[in-house]
Amino acid sequence: MKTKNKKPKRGKALVLLSGGQDSSTALFWAKKKFRKVEAVSFDYGQRHKIELKSAKKTAKLGHVRHTVVPVKEYKKIRNSSLLNRSIKPGTKHKLDRRLPSSFVPGRNILFLTAAAALAYSRGIKNLVIGVSQVDYSGYPDCRQGFIRSMSKSLSLGMGRPVKIHTPLIKKDKKSVVLMAKKLGVLEYMKYTHTCYMGGKKPCGKCPACVLRAKGFKQAGIKDPLTAV
Amino acid sequence: MKTKNKKPKRGKALVLLSGGQDSSTALFWAKKKFRKVEAVSFDYGQRHKIELKSAKKTAKLGHVRHTVVPVKEYKKIRNSSLLNRSIKPGTKHKLDRRLPSSFVPGRNILFLTAAAALAYSRGIKNLVIGVSQVDYSGYPDCRQGFIRSMSKSLSLGMGRPVKIHTPLIKKDKKSVVLMAKKLGVLEYMKYTHTCYMGGKKPCGKCPACVLRAKGFKQAGIKDPLTAV
Repeated sequence: MKTKNKKPKRGKALVLLSGGQDSSTALFWAKKKFRKVEAVSFDYGQRHKIELKSAKKTAKLGHVRHTVVPVKEYKKIRNSSLLNRSIKPGTKHKLDRRLPSSFVPGRNILFLTAAAALAYSRGIKNLVIGVSQVDYSGYPDCRQGFIRSMSKSLSLGMGRPVKIHTPLIKKDKKSVVLMAKKLGVLEYMKYTHTCYMGGKKPCGKCPACVLRAKGFKQAGIKDPLTAV
Repeated sequence: MKTKNKKPKRGKALVLLSGGQDSSTALFWAKKKFRKVEAVSFDYGQRHKIELKSAKKTAKLGHVRHTVVPVKEYKKIRNSSLLNRSIKPGTKHKLDRRLPSSFVPGRNILFLTAAAALAYSRGIKNLVIGVSQVDYSGYPDCRQGFIRSMSKSLSLGMGRPVKIHTPLIKKDKKSVVLMAKKLGVLEYMKYTHTCYMGGKKPCGKCPACVLRAKGFKQAGIKDPLTAV
């Protein structure tokens, strides 16, 4: 009776793993759903490159193959606070005042495409990305409409179906914490990296740290990262 | 009376310039249409990297700013004859027998995204790409349906309109040659690079060389490249 509602695991999936709380939770969600799971991370010149260490650790905890793909397209584009230390996180973006300075134009489009290319070469048809359009920074490439369109573009451009799964799309940060708890991986959250500033310890002040703290507080759970 | 049908030039455009015949023709088309034109090329590990020299020369002839963007996503993906010298051009693709071995999965998706990111940072809303769905290698990312979908994905993901112009989409190779003639840039075609093999001289046998030769022959014009 225990397995009554348990769906059989099917297919292979490649999870976009930044090393943060959301994508790490998405990885363990994928592990429950798919027969075989791999993870991919991107080295794109982010100031918080330290997140790649978290990604590596999380992939190891999940026992999944992990590939780090170099993304050098932003070498000549420095207009985001995530790429340029002289721009302060939490301010408005110079090129679009409706967006935060942390917006990296086209980032998720590049990441999804690079992931799809890797998936293509490994015979994987499912991509998993931990974006949310509830508690998020307002990035346009985290919204459901974009994801739907991108799935179509990738399928047309690759000449075969590419499905993008977004298990967190409607979840606020509190729900993501509770999801990690339900998946039994709450303790692993202590290895994830969130802070935009790139230091080992969370700064506690940047938008990413504030959002994370809010989620744990609302869930009534102590963040294993800051509790260490 | 001379300027009767001449439309005024408007807006700025970024042309994806591989250094080949099609994209070079598209560059000069854009020069007629837009007030300001820039060009972007991609260094993606192609065996015919020599095409970047052609792109540089063509951009110089067109007096346009030229940026070469590094694309390193294919470092770990070697399943195309354009990336891997041990795979013969003109054979079928190992991962999809309907496609030629020269197919690089996601190439135009990555290129268009990287171009859109660069355009975003330069305040450019128009992209120009010289793809054709008539005389082409059968790549799915050269078809109109894909381009239309990609334009939508880029616009949604960037949070602002991104228009993709495809002046060659319905043209066969013969028409492209005649277009270059009409634009008055036929002589510049001698600096373009076409051959997949990567040598300075066209091999004359690979699918790209064969297609080019066919176009010039049908147009009844001597290819300035092979005539040298």
